[in-house]
Amino acid sequence: MKLKVKDVDIATKGVQIVILHQSDAEKLDIYHLDRIRITKGKRTTIAIVNIAESEKLVPKNCIGLFEEVLDVLKARDGSTVNIKLEKKPESIEYIKEKLDGKKLDYAKLKQIIEDIIDNKLTDIELTTFVTSYYIHSSNMQEIADLTKAMINTGEKINFGKKPIVDLHSIGGVPNNRTTMIVVPILIAAGYKFPKTSSRAITSPAGTADTMEVLCSVKHTIPRLKKIVKDVGGFIVWGGSVNLAPADDRIIQIERPLSIDSEAQMLASIMAKKASVGSSHLLLEIPVGQETKVKTQSKAQHLKRMFKSLGRKIGIKVMCIITDGNEPIGNGIGPVLEAKDVLYILSNDVRGPSDLKNKSLMIAGDLLHFVGCSNGRKKAKEILESGKAMIAFMNIVKAQGGKPLNANELKLGNYQYTVTAKKDGYISGFENLGIARIARIAGAPRDKKAGMFLHKHAGDKVKKREPVFTIYSKNKIKLDFAIETLKKTKIYSLRCRR
Amino acid sequence: MKLKVKDVDIATKGVQIVILHQSDAEKLDIYHLDRIRITKGKRTTIAIVNIAESEKLVPKNCIGLFEEVLDVLKARDGSTVNIKLEKKPESIEYIKEKLDGKKLDYAKLKQIIEDIIDNKLTDIELTTFVTSYYIHSSNMQEIADLTKAMINTGEKINFGKKPIVDLHSIGGVPNNRTTMIVVPILIAAGYKFPKTSSRAITSPAGTADTMEVLCSVKHTIPRLKKIVKDVGGFIVWGGSVNLAPADDRIIQIERPLSIDSEAQMLASIMAKKASVGSSHLLLEIPVGQETKVKTQSKAQHLKRMFKSLGRKIGIKVMCIITDGNEPIGNGIGPVLEAKDVLYILSNDVRGPSDLKNKSLMIAGDLLHFVGCSNGRKKAKEILESGKAMIAFMNIVKAQGGKPLNANELKLGNYQYTVTAKKDGYISGFENLGIARIARIAGAPRDKKAGMFLHKHAGDKVKKREPVFTIYSKNKIKLDFAIETLKKTKIYSLRCRR
Repeated sequence: MKLKVKDVDIATKGVQIVILHQSDAEKLDIYHLDRIRITKGKRTTIAIVNIAESEKLVPKNCIGLFEEVLDVLKARDGSTVNIKLEKKPESIEYIKEKLDGKKLDYAKLKQIIEDIIDNKLTDIELTTFVTSYYIHSSNMQEIADLTKAMINTGEKINFGKKPIVDLHSIGGVPNNRTTMIVVPILIAAGYKFPKTSSRAITSPAGTADTMEVLCSVKHTIPRLKKIVKDVGGFIVWGGSVNLAPADDRIIQIERPLSIDSEAQMLASIMAKKASVGSSHLLLEIPVGQETKVKTQSKAQHLKRMFKSLGRKIGIKVMCIITDGNEPIGNGIGPVLEAKDVLYILSNDVRGPSDLKNKSLMIAGDLLHFVGCSNGRKKAKEILESGKAMIAFMNIVKAQGGKPLNANELKLGNYQYTVTAKKDGYISGFENLGIARIARIAGAPRDKKAGMFLHKHAGDKVKKREPVFTIYSKNKIKLDFAIETLKKTKIYSLRCRR
Repeated sequence: MKLKVKDVDIATKGVQIVILHQSDAEKLDIYHLDRIRITKGKRTTIAIVNIAESEKLVPKNCIGLFEEVLDVLKARDGSTVNIKLEKKPESIEYIKEKLDGKKLDYAKLKQIIEDIIDNKLTDIELTTFVTSYYIHSSNMQEIADLTKAMINTGEKINFGKKPIVDLHSIGGVPNNRTTMIVVPILIAAGYKFPKTSSRAITSPAGTADTMEVLCSVKHTIPRLKKIVKDVGGFIVWGGSVNLAPADDRIIQIERPLSIDSEAQMLASIMAKKASVGSSHLLLEIPVGQETKVKTQSKAQHLKRMFKSLGRKIGIKVMCIITDGNEPIGNGIGPVLEAKDVLYILSNDVRGPSDLKNKSLMIAGDLLHFVGCSNGRKKAKEILESGKAMIAFMNIVKAQGGKPLNANELKLGNYQYTVTAKKDGYISGFENLGIARIARIAGAPRDKKAGMFLHKHAGDKVKKREPVFTIYSKNKIKLDFAIETLKKTKIYSLRCRR
């Protein structure tokens, strides 16, 4: 059937969509969300049909093309195209199998992941995949196949000879910016550490956001290779390299319902590590009421799963289970967290000791993991000798930043400090409450926004002594954060220990 | 935040959607598919956000409104509106509970169904509900609650005193147009029979499509009440009355993956029956390789489920399990099926005996079910005396048609007859193959299109004798149907029985 093109001036950034008038759709027995093949001269593509009931957007005998389809066909308003009904991608059959509880093999999973990346699946189809995967627990073979499918459909970067060390934390703990301390310690000890990190999704700062305070976190793959060669490693935003790209689309589906599929999490984390050739991964699993992992038994289970998946795809995994109930570090928000890191690296007394000790423990364990005897002692030596700071500054320079000290980093001009209402002890902070206030103040987009904790859990506090300070560069946002404090618990105070 | 309206000239026919430029979305920490409240003067509504990366469709400081949103706000291009982030509908929490395998109570199910009808849920959220419901088997209490939620969110029509009889077939058998014979027999016997039927979705004709050959199948509720009062019953398209309206939206989600949730099917069928006040329902479950129900044990299971659900919502259910392997009747397609029905009602020898016998059995069982002794004998008397034909013609007239006889119904001018290649016996027809060819020829939209079976399973056939004829009013469609015959099996021929 020949139809006249109408440029409807809409882009999806993804799936190719066309709009048919209902009467034309009926002629070809085409339904909403069916697929059609559209041909113009030698160019051809497959798109998903939306049906218009009125002629307002797309008149009869016309076809409304979204920008993505216009581009592929090199079509424009008034061109003529030919359409015919196209069968569904095979991957839909496989998704249906998963829905019915069957295990999928590598070939089928790879086809699904490829079709996700090529934007061939609608939200309905992809949601069915995600929820089926969530409900029908996967066995390790299937998770390994999913991981391999994700690895083999994205970029793979070869940084040369092993060992290549890596670090990942399951997340949910404010600050916890250990990565920026552990990476330079390991590099100073002579190991390659190509670290890709995430930006904050629901937290006030991710490692990539914090690193971005100091230098660019987006680099091309050839540049990344050169950086590793020159300075031993980097800390960049994973989203800027195309590692396991299906992940983003899957997360987009999981977000509205906060679906948290274990198989999907395992595959997505490990695929990204495998894509940069990591040989030794230290995985931190913080356990706490307000973190992703709430119980010790869940943490132990995840530990087994990660180690087992690592064996299947050739990554040695070491897991440490940590206490995730309290924030680690003083600052929450990109600049505040960067200051904590710089204080520790420069052995400044203002460096928070909890973050320092945790980073040394992780760096030590990682050194031990790759074969150093007395890893923790070595980590401490490297940090205290200033070698870690030098390695870190080399990274910052290699990533296009200039060396700064913590005092040079400025915070938002608008501040508000909360003081203790009575004498007592801080019995604990609330991770979610802290994250919420810091985000409302503007973090992570406003890098200078966030919250500084003057006290930690267990600290003694006197009446009118500051407990925390909120920073923002925007007065309205600060006011809204203060307003929100009324209904948000940040800490608990007890009269006696 | 104040934004300027841009009319983007798109309609969804459902969910309210707005488009924000990425930079504005970032300011308010709004993500793709988040919900916002939009206010213009005293008018306010909630819509789902899509995010535009370029300024082509929606520039910064503007908000693109879909037609549905413009209508509700009485806004136009250039108006100013105020937006703020809105929390998600509560039903999303309940969908999450179902995803996690919990049972939902009536109040939660009703909230979900209401939000479905009000178009408050995105495809992702609704698909999660549908797939979770599909995977996590429901208990009878939950199915009954879902059914009640569907009943209480749609129209309910009161046709007065009981008994009110009803009939439903699970489907998948070509023709099988028993309804149009059973309804007039029961009406002639003095029972009220307000029958709502479906149109074809993937078959060549539904009862509503076939009835529409003779009269209108869309009537208002006051008109339907008058028809029942005047002539005892009707046969109309269920979609024209607003019974259990959530059903359509759910089916739209199930269609792309052919998801077939038992709980959803039970609830949707029974809610529609309850909405018209049915007291006695005869349910036919055809079992066959190419029907919805493939095994006897599945049929027995469904029988128990329907009877049990009936008890919970106050409908007496009688189930008959029939052989669904072969088409019932000679014609497939609206006009061809109407002809079969009219031949039988007028006791013409051209009436297919299989359809006649099956209709008499069902009518007899239904009569027996409502208390008539010797129901089958009575059904036969009513049909053969011509009383059923009179009752049927009264319905046709009441629904705005004029009485016709079978010979007056014309078929598509383009025909193609397939003859036997050798002597033998027809060992069977293929339901799916028949449906496919009849649809390609144009059925059900082309009412005159379809397939006529000259022979039935078990019939002797001689070389060059006609086996079936395809009809279409469109030469191209007929050619395509003939082309498709090459790769589509319609019947099997054996040399000996």
